[in-house]
Amino acid sequence: MRDVAIIGVGLNPKWGELWDISLRDLFAEAALAAIDDAGVDHLDSMYVGCMTSGLFVGQEHLGSLMADYMGQPGLPAMRVESACASGGMAIRAAFFEVASGASDIVLAGGVEKMTDIGGDGATFALSTAADGDYEVYHGVTFPALYAMMAIDHMHKYGTTSEDLAAVASKNHAHGAKNPVCQYPFEISIEQVLESVMVADPLHILDCSPITDGAAAVILCPLDKAKEIAGDKPIIKISGVGAATDTIALHNRDDMSRLGSTEKAAEAALKMAGVGINDIDLIEVHDCFTIAEIMVIEALGIVERGKGGAAARDGLTAIGGKFPVNTSGGLKSKGHPVGATGVAQVVEVTRQLRGEAGDRQVKGAKRGLTQNMGGTGGSAAVTILEVV
Amino acid sequence: MRDVAIIGVGLNPKWGELWDISLRDLFAEAALAAIDDAGVDHLDSMYVGCMTSGLFVGQEHLGSLMADYMGQPGLPAMRVESACASGGMAIRAAFFEVASGASDIVLAGGVEKMTDIGGDGATFALSTAADGDYEVYHGVTFPALYAMMAIDHMHKYGTTSEDLAAVASKNHAHGAKNPVCQYPFEISIEQVLESVMVADPLHILDCSPITDGAAAVILCPLDKAKEIAGDKPIIKISGVGAATDTIALHNRDDMSRLGSTEKAAEAALKMAGVGINDIDLIEVHDCFTIAEIMVIEALGIVERGKGGAAARDGLTAIGGKFPVNTSGGLKSKGHPVGATGVAQVVEVTRQLRGEAGDRQVKGAKRGLTQNMGGTGGSAAVTILEVV
Repeated sequence: MRDVAIIGVGLNPKWGELWDISLRDLFAEAALAAIDDAGVDHLDSMYVGCMTSGLFVGQEHLGSLMADYMGQPGLPAMRVESACASGGMAIRAAFFEVASGASDIVLAGGVEKMTDIGGDGATFALSTAADGDYEVYHGVTFPALYAMMAIDHMHKYGTTSEDLAAVASKNHAHGAKNPVCQYPFEISIEQVLESVMVADPLHILDCSPITDGAAAVILCPLDKAKEIAGDKPIIKISGVGAATDTIALHNRDDMSRLGSTEKAAEAALKMAGVGINDIDLIEVHDCFTIAEIMVIEALGIVERGKGGAAARDGLTAIGGKFPVNTSGGLKSKGHPVGATGVAQVVEVTRQLRGEAGDRQVKGAKRGLTQNMGGTGGSAAVTILEVV
Repeated sequence: MRDVAIIGVGLNPKWGELWDISLRDLFAEAALAAIDDAGVDHLDSMYVGCMTSGLFVGQEHLGSLMADYMGQPGLPAMRVESACASGGMAIRAAFFEVASGASDIVLAGGVEKMTDIGGDGATFALSTAADGDYEVYHGVTFPALYAMMAIDHMHKYGTTSEDLAAVASKNHAHGAKNPVCQYPFEISIEQVLESVMVADPLHILDCSPITDGAAAVILCPLDKAKEIAGDKPIIKISGVGAATDTIALHNRDDMSRLGSTEKAAEAALKMAGVGINDIDLIEVHDCFTIAEIMVIEALGIVERGKGGAAARDGLTAIGGKFPVNTSGGLKSKGHPVGATGVAQVVEVTRQLRGEAGDRQVKGAKRGLTQNMGGTGGSAAVTILEVV
């Protein structure tokens, strides 16, 4: 297997409710930014992570659409879908194509255009990440599913609403320093606790928003990266891991344990030949505040049941021992579901290159991203390091 | 890059309007049949080709759903989408994972549950393979798009309605020998010409049907296949190729030329180190009769403009020089869009193993599949050979 590097990253200048930019424009903007950053003059292949453009905007076949719209008709291209883990899985698929030796310059991107759909359309579109026959049919939606996970965590471990709110407050503090963020401002724990309740115990400020956005990275063989990179630090993908879990929450032995993240992280860390304590910063899938708490437990950053205190105690803030979601996370940056996993890798790449500005983690040499779909029905973990 | 083989194939016993079998049951049935055929006791990873289960049945996140429903929660799994080329692209992605050395036993499947949607839902769902903003918005649907391609071919090359009808008649003659087929009976050229007009010049019997179905294949390294296969012939994947074209038909220089198929075939043949005349049988994407005519031209089986006569003259029948669609093709077998590209590889594998019964192509040693999305906005070509 060939070693694989990331030689370019791109995002839209701003994520949010982008009324004047369409699905194809969103993707092309991020993809062309990544191509520009990489300094390459062609692509060999492309992967487009997207959860459900069919339901959001009535458009499938994004491989063809995006290659065409980027002025590259002919380019081999396909879409990858694993609900909100679509972006992470797109990177994994691109990694295998480069690692196999079949292609050299491969773009992995992600996109979601979520705000064009009216009424409760977004709630339905997102619900298709859950079990349609055995969960959604009964009326449950994602805030409700994560609320049940939160209740379970609180009941077993004594986690509090303040613990949850501290995650949101910490991620907004990070996001206030990231211009791409949909909500680039600080919020206090009190503001979270006083915000409207969506699904007890989750307030609206415990939830990530509905977002339009895209992200892209360019992969190439490590040997070639050394020729192309110029004076930029070379970022190697040292591990990829993926796993699934039961799609329905009610089929799990433990409702607040993320088995897919545990397995995906184990595989990625094994490939990279490192342990979790060798990691300098982490981007995790905080679609709801409780998710970040469960994820840092699944990754082994804290013991099971101890995740609640991490944000409150400063462990996971920039400057803490394990900075988590330096980008602002899904909470502040926004969560265009198909783009999220790719944007996590964009953030870690920028941190490892030392390009993260006011939110730079000093001396960061190795980072990890954790992206998941549904209530953890799937997960993708990627490990990056400076060569 | 490691050499890759196919060690197991599976289909549902029957494709068609399957009212008592759900999306997940369809996929699991084909996948478990492939696992049984391969004789393996585990999988390392899985790819699920599906065009638009979100629009057809309100369910995304098929990687998690299918791994779970097959009794394999934990298994790394993701969905691949390239409209009607989703199946072929799923096989290509699985190929890279095995070729890279990352995984050994990988399932690539495809599924579509198309008949549960009411009214004109299927027409809309399928239209999302075209350009939503610049084609579908104006009311065009797929029969109309392929009708325009047919008119262009007729105008340029003198192709006739009888030529089109001969493709349907030939494929039904093949399909009458294949029990999985949705419509396993013969039809005459006259019956096609007398059937109701859908979009001039395409009669309803020029069109592939709406179908529920699934297909699966198991890939593994060629070296390992030699240990596992027992006395079954070993089938190597000697080439994979993919390409895109403009998603919108009106953006092409030539409306009846399939550039993506030309490029994908060129790449696959190059990887396999063979020419089109080294191929013994072919499965192509005859979503409409005109498609088969354009595809055999794009593959170089006949010169451009000469495809119309191929079925009428017997060139592409079993027993002819280039048997095309021995399975019955999309026309007779049915076209569950996400499953089609995988089912093509199932048919060629069975032919190369000598297991095709009454439709066996004698002495077949090498076969090719061509699967495409939209009006050829994407294409995937796979070449298989007996080792």
